[in-house]
Amino acid sequence: MFVDLNCDMGESFGAYKLGNDREIMRYVSSANIACGFHAGDPSVMKKTVRMALENGVALGAHPGLPDLVGFGRRNMEISAEEAYDLVVYQIGALQAFVQAEGGVMQHMKPHGALYNMAATRASLAEAIAEAVYQVNPNLILYGLAGSELITAGVKLGLRTAQEVFADRTYQQDGTLTSRNHPNAIITSQGEAVSQVVRMVQEGSVRSLQGTDVPITADTICIHGDGTNALEFAKLIHQSLSTSNVAVSAFWDR
Amino acid sequence: MFVDLNCDMGESFGAYKLGNDREIMRYVSSANIACGFHAGDPSVMKKTVRMALENGVALGAHPGLPDLVGFGRRNMEISAEEAYDLVVYQIGALQAFVQAEGGVMQHMKPHGALYNMAATRASLAEAIAEAVYQVNPNLILYGLAGSELITAGVKLGLRTAQEVFADRTYQQDGTLTSRNHPNAIITSQGEAVSQVVRMVQEGSVRSLQGTDVPITADTICIHGDGTNALEFAKLIHQSLSTSNVAVSAFWDR
Amino acid sequence: MFVDLNCDMGESFGAYKLGNDREIMRYVSSANIACGFHAGDPSVMKKTVRMALENGVALGAHPGLPDLVGFGRRNMEISAEEAYDLVVYQIGALQAFVQAEGGVMQHMKPHGALYNMAATRASLAEAIAEAVYQVNPNLILYGLAGSELITAGVKLGLRTAQEVFADRTYQQDGTLTSRNHPNAIITSQGEAVSQVVRMVQEGSVRSLQGTDVPITADTICIHGDGTNALEFAKLIHQSLSTSNVAVSAFWDR
Amino acid sequence: MFVDLNCDMGESFGAYKLGNDREIMRYVSSANIACGFHAGDPSVMKKTVRMALENGVALGAHPGLPDLVGFGRRNMEISAEEAYDLVVYQIGALQAFVQAEGGVMQHMKPHGALYNMAATRASLAEAIAEAVYQVNPNLILYGLAGSELITAGVKLGLRTAQEVFADRTYQQDGTLTSRNHPNAIITSQGEAVSQVVRMVQEGSVRSLQGTDVPITADTICIHGDGTNALEFAKLIHQSLSTSNVAVSAFWDR
Repeated sequence: MFVDLNCDMGESFGAYKLGNDREIMRYVSSANIACGFHAGDPSVMKKTVRMALENGVALGAHPGLPDLVGFGRRNMEISAEEAYDLVVYQIGALQAFVQAEGGVMQHMKPHGALYNMAATRASLAEAIAEAVYQVNPNLILYGLAGSELITAGVKLGLRTAQEVFADRTYQQDGTLTSRNHPNAIITSQGEAVSQVVRMVQEGSVRSLQGTDVPITADTICIHGDGTNALEFAKLIHQSLSTSNVAVSAFWDR
Repeated sequence: MFVDLNCDMGESFGAYKLGNDREIMRYVSSANIACGFHAGDPSVMKKTVRMALENGVALGAHPGLPDLVGFGRRNMEISAEEAYDLVVYQIGALQAFVQAEGGVMQHMKPHGALYNMAATRASLAEAIAEAVYQVNPNLILYGLAGSELITAGVKLGLRTAQEVFADRTYQQDGTLTSRNHPNAIITSQGEAVSQVVRMVQEGSVRSLQGTDVPITADTICIHGDGTNALEFAKLIHQSLSTSNVAVSAFWDR
Repeated sequence: MFVDLNCDMGESFGAYKLGNDREIMRYVSSANIACGFHAGDPSVMKKTVRMALENGVALGAHPGLPDLVGFGRRNMEISAEEAYDLVVYQIGALQAFVQAEGGVMQHMKPHGALYNMAATRASLAEAIAEAVYQVNPNLILYGLAGSELITAGVKLGLRTAQEVFADRTYQQDGTLTSRNHPNAIITSQGEAVSQVVRMVQEGSVRSLQGTDVPITADTICIHGDGTNALEFAKLIHQSLSTSNVAVSAFWDR
Repeated sequence: MFVDLNCDMGESFGAYKLGNDREIMRYVSSANIACGFHAGDPSVMKKTVRMALENGVALGAHPGLPDLVGFGRRNMEISAEEAYDLVVYQIGALQAFVQAEGGVMQHMKPHGALYNMAATRASLAEAIAEAVYQVNPNLILYGLAGSELITAGVKLGLRTAQEVFADRTYQQDGTLTSRNHPNAIITSQGEAVSQVVRMVQEGSVRSLQGTDVPITADTICIHGDGTNALEFAKLIHQSLSTSNVAVSAFWDR
């Protein structure tokens, strides 16, 4: 039994440092590398690609909205065509560093508000999937489990990876509990780990409403910042291993 | 006998329109497409790539300094490594649009201040040539005839294209007359055309000092903006044709 | 009887030219000057302030969303506090040029998506009005007639100017017809002029539904770009004059 | 006997945190606040202005080159007019936050490469001094002791503050030792403190060549980042106090 552990990386920018990429690299199988729009810059991208290759971590493009000051977290009313264009651009920028370093890109996962909008808006989701398909149809499309983005990828014949979150609660329709809700976040590391292991092993998650909901957990998102990020990554990695779930990127299988 | 006619294109940005790409396309063989740092944006890049492919014009990346408000024309003291990084990034961004449209990229030509600095500073020139080599060693490196950039490309085994200017005067050491000099620009279209035809046919240019200087003219730069740009492009194209010099991109030969 | 004619100006950026400020200046009484976020740059701002002062046109700040490539026209989910901050910043930037040139700023009008969001969202409207109030309570707040922005300004004791559009149709609740609606734009210049004169003289507009709706027309928005902008500005100016409505900025009364 | 201790502040940007402003505030008398071009954003500016006012620290604008990814540290060949424009813009942006918070701005100090270029290039220095003069002639112009910027300020009748560095060595002509030189930085905190106290008390500094050079030390620059920044700020503050030199901003005297 396998699962992929992914983490956002390469989010530093110029003189600004963010995240703990070097340490987190040891516990994840796939890195989503920022491409300069919401975070990252060309120098950071090169270094992050190198570091991932040295650590045997699979490489993915992590395109975001053109909103550096908002870290790509604020919804912007971009058109589907604009979404296509900025995803093509950012995949290409990262791909060049991957080529220059002699690597191969594994996947693409949109960032922040772009990820969220692509989860529920079919036209954006289709444009983003189309961008991946046109630039490199071998890329695996990462998206929220059960989302429009996954549907759009499947429709185009792309390989997709359904993503689940360790530290977020779920609703009985399988969606994430909104961050505005007091119980959106699971603060107990033990509960978070249990939820993850169950999602992977049983394909099921206990919703906030108390019912079990089927869910596909191809890849688990780990947050790389925050004080306990490293410890949590380590814990999840260990718990999966002791549950006989191997943490590995898709291209390693 | 062949020569390439190249022109900067895709320099519009968002609501801002610049240049007359659609018309100029008819008279040039190669397009240098801005990549979003000094000009251009993802949507403009896609449209320009499409337009070039429709017109059979060869595609090149035209990376610039990260200075949109200065249009990449102001020297910036970037390090050689920074130059490498931003050239890799921008080639990649354009390459993704070329791939998505089913085309093949022919060349890379740095823009503005980056072009000028790469002409005389060996370390920058080498970093830029290395970026091309690492991302795609089949790309042809465009640079000022006789410049450090050409030297750096040759050293790496890249195919290079030495560029000459129709409307600029030359010094007896083969360099361009500085724009600060009153006689830097040839204002007579007739003289400009004669100079170009002679550079291509005889490999020689009459310097401001009156001596003939050997020069290699693989490609001629046409400026796409300005009131007479279109007319001038047409005139050069016709004059070369009547002199039995075929205007064609490198990949068409 | 008076009315103000305002127009967006200073929308050029670096090498990019937009609008026909020098000509339009002759027919309007107030200029809304872009402040560098959605358009404009420091050099353009200085020149536009100078030009307005030379032409006796009243000066206003025209802050927008931080979205240069989208020209500030795409809604962004900024918080009320972020709106406050970016309006303070942009008013200040323009104010410095006005001070340096020995002028006085008359007004503030938000641009594009910021204007539209402030028309209907009370919290954003209040934050923007508060920004004006804190930086310079003598500024007149321009907003869509009958909008939340006007309400917010009145609540703070700011002087407000209710804005109407010559070339847009109205609904029976006094709102603008959405641009998605086929009849949103009045294409006949004659009809547009008649509508404006009536709004100013009678405080009333015939809605698309055929009923008359009361409306306050303190200031009329003229678009400065487009092929007929200049001609239309001239026509509106003349029609108002022949109807005994003087075109003048607020500070001239 | 008085001296001013100044420190660059407000250098965070969006999600990126930089520096230790809250702690450093306790030991300095003047804050140079980034204005959004090389660092800082509208929200950071507001918070930094508030924090400085709460701590009784004098407020200054700290304009930089439009180079966020390079943190304003890379020389750019901007024209004198462009320097004027971007200094006016940035002073204005900060001034608006100062007005909104009910404070008064004390000074302007250019950042990084702009500071360095203004130290030796008279035309840039004059343009920057002119920008200060036109926007607010009561601002104190901070510049490198003995530099062209101080000369330009004096010529315009501006009040100036000559700045010295605790941790940099000096040449016998009074200039700073270039950072390329192995002995450019004083690594011993004790030596740095002694140098500073002597510059303030005796108006003299021992050059690397061993001769004493006269120097005016109106204000001392403290670096706010780095691991020992806080400790060093505290140490300098204490050493000056025990040497009967009061640390105070100019407006407090």
